[in-house]
Amino acid sequence: MRARHKPWAESFINEYPDVVIQEPEQLKGCWAEEFSNSHPIHIEVGTGKGRFITGMAEANPDINYIGIEMFRDIIVTAVQRADEAGKPANLRLLNVNAERLEDIFAPGEVGRVYLNFSDPWPKARHAKRRLTHDNFLTRYERILLPEGEVHFKTDNRGLFEYSLMNMTDYGMRLADVSLDLHADKPEWNIMTEYEEKFSSKGQPIYRLEAAFRNEGN
Amino acid sequence: MRARHKPWAESFINEYPDVVIQEPEQLKGCWAEEFSNSHPIHIEVGTGKGRFITGMAEANPDINYIGIEMFRDIIVTAVQRADEAGKPANLRLLNVNAERLEDIFAPGEVGRVYLNFSDPWPKARHAKRRLTHDNFLTRYERILLPEGEVHFKTDNRGLFEYSLMNMTDYGMRLADVSLDLHADKPEWNIMTEYEEKFSSKGQPIYRLEAAFRNEGN
Repeated sequence: MRARHKPWAESFINEYPDVVIQEPEQLKGCWAEEFSNSHPIHIEVGTGKGRFITGMAEANPDINYIGIEMFRDIIVTAVQRADEAGKPANLRLLNVNAERLEDIFAPGEVGRVYLNFSDPWPKARHAKRRLTHDNFLTRYERILLPEGEVHFKTDNRGLFEYSLMNMTDYGMRLADVSLDLHADKPEWNIMTEYEEKFSSKGQPIYRLEAAFRNEGN
Repeated sequence: MRARHKPWAESFINEYPDVVIQEPEQLKGCWAEEFSNSHPIHIEVGTGKGRFITGMAEANPDINYIGIEMFRDIIVTAVQRADEAGKPANLRLLNVNAERLEDIFAPGEVGRVYLNFSDPWPKARHAKRRLTHDNFLTRYERILLPEGEVHFKTDNRGLFEYSLMNMTDYGMRLADVSLDLHADKPEWNIMTEYEEKFSSKGQPIYRLEAAFRNEGN
């Protein structure tokens, strides 16, 4: 996701220390204390402008949401959106790279990982950067609860095909798959900015839910 | 697939004993002798009017093809097509139910199973009849070589979603997946009657290749 450079972004973000956690590593294993409750913690990796994570936080007050976005010029929009929503008590944002997930969350501290319209990195030599590459799946596996799931949606056919193959090769079980999410019209679906733009063009939205272990295990 | 009742079908088929094998159980373990060579044997389960299997047999003379179709009023068209193609030496047809696969093929006798535009059986109570249900996957697994694959294509979204989940749950590895086969325009693709009809309407054709074992096993 590209954004215009915003020289004011750093000082803007610093004005919201209760929304954007500055040194999230210090909360590893202690996120329940940060939220002052033991509700499940769901994270979105690549939260972009924050429409999804803010909408989810407002719709589900009994779940804690953490949106992770590495680009400062993009996460500022998510901060503004969280501010407009009255800074929901169950929402935090992190301006960090997803490569640091294991420094930020203890094993089993996360209940669900959302990936929405992630960068497809279409060139084979960039496959390692895809958020459904083994490099990231191992990180999700370590921070997720055993029954935790990865929920992934995208309009990018190549990325979805790759993800189906790579996630199942990794040993993940597909809990749910839709190859045309909007045709199914699920009431629970909260759209991202991208999703609204692409689905309005008639482009199918692909979605899957996957778990690292079988329920019986 | 529906077809008009053809009272002449039985006697017509009986005129082609070199194309339609009458008692295929007697050839179990001996298909190489039937074809007089040891080429790989690829079967299509639900071969319909036979356009795919005849086209494959003509395009790949070093592979033996066996088309299996339970409906007599439909397989007659495949017989006519095989006759028009000069009865390729590497093509046979069987008018049997796929539930009998293990009576017809010895373990490891088959190199590949093709499923093309299989009946979707959309109602949950009919799931057992889908050709990607465990009831059939176990049969394919037993007759296939260890490195053998199932190649499946369909225009039916619900059946494809079900198959992705069920085949990977069963432990199959996805070797290739396309969520819009005709956008990829593979030169090797031989279209079925259904495929031409549906893809010409702009409907995506879904396709996967799956194996029962990982290459490393």
